[in-house]
Amino acid sequence: MPTQTSIQPQGVYVIAPTPFFPDGRIDEASIDRMTDFYIAGGMDGMTVLGQLGEAPKMSHEESVGIVKRVLSRFRRPVIVGVSAPGFAPMRALAQDVMALGAAGVMIAPPNTLRTDDSIVQYYRQASEAIGTDVPFVIQDYPLTFSVQMAPAVIRRIHMDNPSCLFLKHEDWPGLEKISQLRAWEKEGSLRRLPILIGNNALFLDFEMERGADGANTGYCFPDMLADVVRLSQQGKRDEAHDLFDAHLPLIRYEQQPGPGLAVRKYVLMRRGVIASDTLRKPGAPRTAFARAEVDYLLARLAKRDGRARL
Amino acid sequence: MPTQTSIQPQGVYVIAPTPFFPDGRIDEASIDRMTDFYIAGGMDGMTVLGQLGEAPKMSHEESVGIVKRVLSRFRRPVIVGVSAPGFAPMRALAQDVMALGAAGVMIAPPNTLRTDDSIVQYYRQASEAIGTDVPFVIQDYPLTFSVQMAPAVIRRIHMDNPSCLFLKHEDWPGLEKISQLRAWEKEGSLRRLPILIGNNALFLDFEMERGADGANTGYCFPDMLADVVRLSQQGKRDEAHDLFDAHLPLIRYEQQPGPGLAVRKYVLMRRGVIASDTLRKPGAPRTAFARAEVDYLLARLAKRDGRARL
Amino acid sequence: MPTQTSIQPQGVYVIAPTPFFPDGRIDEASIDRMTDFYIAGGMDGMTVLGQLGEAPKMSHEESVGIVKRVLSRFRRPVIVGVSAPGFAPMRALAQDVMALGAAGVMIAPPNTLRTDDSIVQYYRQASEAIGTDVPFVIQDYPLTFSVQMAPAVIRRIHMDNPSCLFLKHEDWPGLEKISQLRAWEKEGSLRRLPILIGNNALFLDFEMERGADGANTGYCFPDMLADVVRLSQQGKRDEAHDLFDAHLPLIRYEQQPGPGLAVRKYVLMRRGVIASDTLRKPGAPRTAFARAEVDYLLARLAKRDGRARL
Amino acid sequence: MPTQTSIQPQGVYVIAPTPFFPDGRIDEASIDRMTDFYIAGGMDGMTVLGQLGEAPKMSHEESVGIVKRVLSRFRRPVIVGVSAPGFAPMRALAQDVMALGAAGVMIAPPNTLRTDDSIVQYYRQASEAIGTDVPFVIQDYPLTFSVQMAPAVIRRIHMDNPSCLFLKHEDWPGLEKISQLRAWEKEGSLRRLPILIGNNALFLDFEMERGADGANTGYCFPDMLADVVRLSQQGKRDEAHDLFDAHLPLIRYEQQPGPGLAVRKYVLMRRGVIASDTLRKPGAPRTAFARAEVDYLLARLAKRDGRARL
Repeated sequence: MPTQTSIQPQGVYVIAPTPFFPDGRIDEASIDRMTDFYIAGGMDGMTVLGQLGEAPKMSHEESVGIVKRVLSRFRRPVIVGVSAPGFAPMRALAQDVMALGAAGVMIAPPNTLRTDDSIVQYYRQASEAIGTDVPFVIQDYPLTFSVQMAPAVIRRIHMDNPSCLFLKHEDWPGLEKISQLRAWEKEGSLRRLPILIGNNALFLDFEMERGADGANTGYCFPDMLADVVRLSQQGKRDEAHDLFDAHLPLIRYEQQPGPGLAVRKYVLMRRGVIASDTLRKPGAPRTAFARAEVDYLLARLAKRDGRARL
Repeated sequence: MPTQTSIQPQGVYVIAPTPFFPDGRIDEASIDRMTDFYIAGGMDGMTVLGQLGEAPKMSHEESVGIVKRVLSRFRRPVIVGVSAPGFAPMRALAQDVMALGAAGVMIAPPNTLRTDDSIVQYYRQASEAIGTDVPFVIQDYPLTFSVQMAPAVIRRIHMDNPSCLFLKHEDWPGLEKISQLRAWEKEGSLRRLPILIGNNALFLDFEMERGADGANTGYCFPDMLADVVRLSQQGKRDEAHDLFDAHLPLIRYEQQPGPGLAVRKYVLMRRGVIASDTLRKPGAPRTAFARAEVDYLLARLAKRDGRARL
Repeated sequence: MPTQTSIQPQGVYVIAPTPFFPDGRIDEASIDRMTDFYIAGGMDGMTVLGQLGEAPKMSHEESVGIVKRVLSRFRRPVIVGVSAPGFAPMRALAQDVMALGAAGVMIAPPNTLRTDDSIVQYYRQASEAIGTDVPFVIQDYPLTFSVQMAPAVIRRIHMDNPSCLFLKHEDWPGLEKISQLRAWEKEGSLRRLPILIGNNALFLDFEMERGADGANTGYCFPDMLADVVRLSQQGKRDEAHDLFDAHLPLIRYEQQPGPGLAVRKYVLMRRGVIASDTLRKPGAPRTAFARAEVDYLLARLAKRDGRARL
Repeated sequence: MPTQTSIQPQGVYVIAPTPFFPDGRIDEASIDRMTDFYIAGGMDGMTVLGQLGEAPKMSHEESVGIVKRVLSRFRRPVIVGVSAPGFAPMRALAQDVMALGAAGVMIAPPNTLRTDDSIVQYYRQASEAIGTDVPFVIQDYPLTFSVQMAPAVIRRIHMDNPSCLFLKHEDWPGLEKISQLRAWEKEGSLRRLPILIGNNALFLDFEMERGADGANTGYCFPDMLADVVRLSQQGKRDEAHDLFDAHLPLIRYEQQPGPGLAVRKYVLMRRGVIASDTLRKPGAPRTAFARAEVDYLLARLAKRDGRARL
């Protein structure tokens, strides 16, 4: 079981969707297959029960069950989303999953926070609530959570809380934020902050060059993300961009809020990873998309990247 | 145990706070004392686990425990807030509390809804999720939930869902909305919709005159609310306003978002109803208020209304 | 003509509505009558073209015309709202009205600002745009502008900009904010910041006790505001509250966003101050209210305060 | 001068930036060069003073001057953004530019609108304010304006207002919206509604296939947009996607809110179209980007599309 100090977040921590049967029940066989798929794809870590894991639609028991299932197969760090409007359910889930062997938890800010101090204070209180020994990830995703975290706020959270594990960076635009944080590290005003990027990797190419350590997102070809990260780290700039650009039409299509998750699940279903692309309600009715458009994108992609030959 | 058809929502359905010990644990003795206080005050119904019952801060087990405790003493309708970001936890709580004898549930819309259709659809899906035989209350509170429900949207929800029980009206400004809904009832395009008003009763005086059936809020003198409702229904307009106006300085003070709940709990503590005015985190740090100011308001109120002589 | 250094903002700086003819044209005779009414009521200053002066609905020429008209009669400081989405129109208006003899301008933040730094920077840029010699007022009104200014942000703006004149405080809840700012003055980390309160004076009673210097709002009985300010400053606490409480039912009614301005104009029309209660579009259709309800409130008020005998 | 009935919006109506000198003054020589560049690029129309034309930062006189300058050279339809918080400035600008020969105006909804009816009513009032004979464009851009227009709302606006000219569609996700509107046209419940897409053309490829008539955006290679529109209309699907995909890495980079406009101006400057990439304040400080990154994207693009060889 990974312990706090053993984790050096880098590479790809894939954001796992939650597979459902068409009637909305959790599909455990698909969880297993998906976990094996991520292992085979060389994922460095896995984050379950994020926003795109449909976490808020799960009961506590279901959440714990999913984590248990994943941990039974995945031998690398598993992060668990525990965001909740109150600290009681957040603490309950955090403690249960840490006891099962999770490597840490991920916390997004409630969408009512509007001042720098209120955000900093929220993370301090959240850390106290879950236990200051529980590693946590800051999720910085203004597009979904409507909370703007200035770089200085992230620095304060990371400096105040030794259990702050890494930043899931998905601000948009967000390139300057990475550069600012790395500049502060250099000048010594920020302790080393691992940064894994999200937002469906829409800017992974340049985010790596700005100083990101990897990706923490769930694009339907996560092994491509790993390749881009590796190529970028090896300084093979053109190759990294070539591979990334080949996928960009689909990345962009999957990044749409709402239908994006349906697209992701559909491709994973077509790849044989999960049995159904069902989403739980509410949300499903807003998720319409043309499967034919995705099929067309996949066919085009297959000409440039062999792994898309389904 | 009340059944759906037996409920004719009117009078005061008091919004109950959740009493905590100073360390944040639920204080069951205070729940009992509070319930008896509401019975003695002549409350027609009770709503637990609303926004000001700090519902999102409770775990499922705690929520069920609170409902069980209240139902063991209160012989009139108990409504239970079950709002949740997902339908799985909403259904779980709704089914558990209905099995215990709740008269219905209350549902607020998620703060992402922006179009008329999306709101109507949400309530239809929610009703299907909890069971179309479970009576539900529409909570219309834009100040807190950021969702604007046009009168036509409320009409559609009420006409589409036979299990729609009443409207907790707390739009602000909201007087015209009540008049519009009542006009539609008269012309026959809306079936009878009971309306209980909230928003800490800041407009109870005129809302009754516009056609409200009562109040569904938690002001610290709920018996005053019952008196104003009765006086208004008896056509004693001046008396209703006289009583209301005497309380308005404190009503206004308690209606502040954030500190308002702390004020309410503080007065209930001073009245001997609950043992502590503790709020659960998060939220507590924004709730500072000057107790001396409330004491001063109470002292002034005591000169005009005997029940405020503490 | 007042100069920057001569102004010690205190007392009541009344927020003036803009009187229109029923067809929407500006009614200059009513402007004159209203100005005389404010002079007679002992107003210490006047703010024109605020949000409730319907400023965004005016063309530049109309705005300048209104200011000129008011300045031709009013011998005390006149502040002019110059908020605009861009600095070019803001500077144009600020320079024109300062040249005419305005004492300063008022600036509200654009509703997109979300971080502490972005708010501080906005005011610095705005001050540079209008001229750093032009006194400006910070308008802190989250309910309308959706921007939350932490006390520390206000301190930074005031300390960074010598031309910062006073704070129009209309945060809600906002009592603690005043106390915090006054505490910082005492400890020496904030230079003297005059605070005039707004939000239709809903908390004027306690805001004065927390340290406000007066009011900067447009309630339809501005002379009552002046009396409460004076009584409070003289330490006549009970008298201040008695007078305030008598008006609170109407204050609350007038404070409603949308219809509130229509109520204010209606009462001013009934008092013979302006000729019509017309509002310019857009906005008018949301402003319905029952005149009979206001008449009833006025009749009740007249029994407790002679000035309401119309 | 084009008249209302002569316009059949299709192809590319390019969104023009406003060129400034480094000190913020308007650069008229660059306006001329830019206009000629758009003529040479085969633009079917031109929209000036949109959001990305920095319209809110301009005074009325400046706005009129820009339109006059553009109209002196451009012989095809020119649409002018006239969005404003009030109808008086909106009408003033609309009437001035129509008198100069503009083909129509563009109106975005104020960001406070939250119900279907309020949006429909706003456009009706706006049309009455500017004159019901003035052709207007609906701008549907929730990402920037925070207003969600359901397809049914757009239908009502178009059916209610004969002067509604076309829809600037930039909802995101937005593919289903186009399909819905086209389906309504087919069933006869919606009169023909031209749809030109925006949002920096991020989904131009599929939006054309869903039924869009063209693009109304300002990507720095507008001639590429015209080619994609034409290829798509000719049924050359793969070619359209090939060309689009080559530009997608840069499209995505330019689509970032904030820095995006700076990127656009930078490329137009590098292409020799405008003399400086200056943005007016406020906004500039949030627009940092790495020019080297754009240069790299251009160099890569040049290998796939000759027009990018700068």
